[in-house]
Amino acid sequence: MPSRPNVLFILLDNVGYGDPGCYGGGELRMAPTPRIDALAGQGLRLTNFNVEAECTPTRAAILTGRMPIRTGCHHAAHGGHYGLAPWEYTMPQMFKDAGYATACFGKWHLGPGNRHPTMLGFDAWYGIQDSSDPVYDAMTVGHDGVSREPKIWEGVGGAPGTPVADYDQHTRPLIDEWVTARAVEWMRVQAAADTPFFCYVPFTRVHHPALPHPDFAGRSGNGAYADTMLEVDHRTGQLLDVLDELEVGDDTIVVWASDNGPPSHGTLGPQGDPGPFRGCLGTAYEGQLRVPCIVRWPGQVQAGRVSNEMVSCMDFYATWANLLAATLPDDRAYDSLDLTDFLAGSGPSPRSSLLCFIGQRLAAVKYQQFKMHFVEYGTEPGRRYKWDLAFPQVYNIASDPKEEWDILATNLWMSKKVEEVVTAYVLSVFEHPNIAAGGDAPDPAVGAGIIGAR
Amino acid sequence: MPSRPNVLFILLDNVGYGDPGCYGGGELRMAPTPRIDALAGQGLRLTNFNVEAECTPTRAAILTGRMPIRTGCHHAAHGGHYGLAPWEYTMPQMFKDAGYATACFGKWHLGPGNRHPTMLGFDAWYGIQDSSDPVYDAMTVGHDGVSREPKIWEGVGGAPGTPVADYDQHTRPLIDEWVTARAVEWMRVQAAADTPFFCYVPFTRVHHPALPHPDFAGRSGNGAYADTMLEVDHRTGQLLDVLDELEVGDDTIVVWASDNGPPSHGTLGPQGDPGPFRGCLGTAYEGQLRVPCIVRWPGQVQAGRVSNEMVSCMDFYATWANLLAATLPDDRAYDSLDLTDFLAGSGPSPRSSLLCFIGQRLAAVKYQQFKMHFVEYGTEPGRRYKWDLAFPQVYNIASDPKEEWDILATNLWMSKKVEEVVTAYVLSVFEHPNIAAGGDAPDPAVGAGIIGAR
Repeated sequence: MPSRPNVLFILLDNVGYGDPGCYGGGELRMAPTPRIDALAGQGLRLTNFNVEAECTPTRAAILTGRMPIRTGCHHAAHGGHYGLAPWEYTMPQMFKDAGYATACFGKWHLGPGNRHPTMLGFDAWYGIQDSSDPVYDAMTVGHDGVSREPKIWEGVGGAPGTPVADYDQHTRPLIDEWVTARAVEWMRVQAAADTPFFCYVPFTRVHHPALPHPDFAGRSGNGAYADTMLEVDHRTGQLLDVLDELEVGDDTIVVWASDNGPPSHGTLGPQGDPGPFRGCLGTAYEGQLRVPCIVRWPGQVQAGRVSNEMVSCMDFYATWANLLAATLPDDRAYDSLDLTDFLAGSGPSPRSSLLCFIGQRLAAVKYQQFKMHFVEYGTEPGRRYKWDLAFPQVYNIASDPKEEWDILATNLWMSKKVEEVVTAYVLSVFEHPNIAAGGDAPDPAVGAGIIGAR
Repeated sequence: MPSRPNVLFILLDNVGYGDPGCYGGGELRMAPTPRIDALAGQGLRLTNFNVEAECTPTRAAILTGRMPIRTGCHHAAHGGHYGLAPWEYTMPQMFKDAGYATACFGKWHLGPGNRHPTMLGFDAWYGIQDSSDPVYDAMTVGHDGVSREPKIWEGVGGAPGTPVADYDQHTRPLIDEWVTARAVEWMRVQAAADTPFFCYVPFTRVHHPALPHPDFAGRSGNGAYADTMLEVDHRTGQLLDVLDELEVGDDTIVVWASDNGPPSHGTLGPQGDPGPFRGCLGTAYEGQLRVPCIVRWPGQVQAGRVSNEMVSCMDFYATWANLLAATLPDDRAYDSLDLTDFLAGSGPSPRSSLLCFIGQRLAAVKYQQFKMHFVEYGTEPGRRYKWDLAFPQVYNIASDPKEEWDILATNLWMSKKVEEVVTAYVLSVFEHPNIAAGGDAPDPAVGAGIIGAR
């Protein structure tokens, strides 16, 4: 392994814990995922990998190593002034400063204009700026013509991207083919130049609308969602194949993860599955927080390993910082914990707790196999209620993965542990105030509202 | 492979689909199951293995190849006159008639006295007659002394068993150790005599009360239920080890399965987990119907295979009948389908549909990945409601494993398919009337009530 391995970071959109075959889905959903399963067999499969509340927060957390409440990215805003502030020291910037080529192929969802990937550390970008939701606009009965008219963008480092095509019902089926082709071509160029690379591929699948690629439409025999899971597996395989073709597989760390749990909107019908867990996008249950994540790192990560130790999507940031011996700005708080020893199998995961925000609100706190909730969520399909709780609820997730049996009364010690974890966070906010959503400057008011209403 | 392989049939009590490691539990529940997982790696892991509504019905279905509604075993009765009628041609009798030694070590739950295992084809029996529930009797506040006083029984073929010890809070922790020891010793004797054997080991775990064996108490670090799952794995390993010790592993078919989904009674707290599925014992959702099942058959079943094709616990009966070239009585209806080609990988599963009875009531019908429900069940923990449905519900389990999105309106064709399947069953009842619960003679009234109230 060279001291500067490539990193291929594949991020899926809305893939649930229970969707890939190696997580209990695949064939069960009539959508086998042999390439993803094989990747898991070559690396580490995490069964307690935790993400943030939705697309934007998770992406911000991965790329900054900071909780989205700190970066103003705690909401998936649609259009307008929002996203990663220009002064964030991003993961691609860290790689760039270490002499890597960097590129983003796929969905950004971290802001427009001066917040484009090419303004935040990426040398190249091709993909969509926001979510796939606006594709519905022109498909909707009663649509009044006031569409958001989303685009497919392209750009090079140092300037915002420019739109190159419409992102609509005609291009939505094809976008991940195009994303893959560009990622493959770009990796070929870097390998030919012997330049180490950080290639971030945030695919647009399996986010609705599930308009399948023509090569996969009808292939699963179980409808459009399953067809798109087949495409996810195929595209993953195409990216892995090019590493083999370029003979850089042994010099490349591959991460394959999802950004949040499956949605449960009434108009969509069933989408992804949260596996053994309760909940969906919009809740703080494990079905939202826990998603698939596979790490292949030849020479460092034992093939075929499975771990249920707690890891956060934020933790790759500190891990790469250690790998690259990066110097991070010291004027801000980080929440990322270095996984180096854990991945190498020479130590436990450094993480024993996690704060779970939904928007600005601290919805739950995890500590080892326990979780304290401050809000209860309705998890019936298509119904997205929440209730304030007169008393917090405590669940033992390892006994009760569906978070149904409140054990607060016999586990009041959790209050003490939660107090410790929350106090440490609050003190960090006094030292390094949070910034407002879409803001460029710290805003102490946000930090103060951690258990307030969203 | 000899023409007459041994069969070791291990049946667990209340283990949920999501409990073993190879089904997504194990480490996730803080109860790793390395021996069970290794067994799956040596054989076929079924992900669509369907059982009956509870303990007694499933056990009757396995041992007769007939739906429990036909054999009068459609309820888990406690005490009194119930169970397998003496005129059933049981699986052990089939093996006995083929020259095998047969034994049952563990939980019977198919009737007292002249319905004991030793009256229904087993040469030997050691274990409990009914369920583990009565162990609670003397442990209960306000217990009035009128305990059911359950026993541990022993017996030899041709006569009912005799009680040899109390089955209570003192022996409940130890029973599966004793069951294992006797099964191991018995298999040693058969192997020494070069007699082919059918060894049926219906363990008492993980049925409540979860009073762990002293060797496992506290071992999981996650409470008594997880401790007992550790014992399940260990005892499974002990049975497999003796096959190796006796050098009969290659000549022995091993089946490892559960009898029904996990319970969800208020006083118990969380027990087993149904994995990605909805529901629990007492419902007709997949979380009840689908349980783990592993088949190791050296030379016949490809190691490491996983299949989501539909199989019923009834189907082993016809499979062994084919293996043994058994002649079955032709005066009754069978529901078992021969899995020989499916297991060998030379054909699909013969099963595309399944009738799901709860008690006397036809609660649901499965066809391929679809299911029509006639009753809706509350699945909140500790709440066991059911409602009659104004219209049936239809679910696509492969898209919607949690059976939440009713698609009847767009899949009315299912009514036609269900009508076909139900009609075939009703006609079979006219030809071969069902018998009443606990009855020894056919009772046409039961057959008539298939969609009536329980």
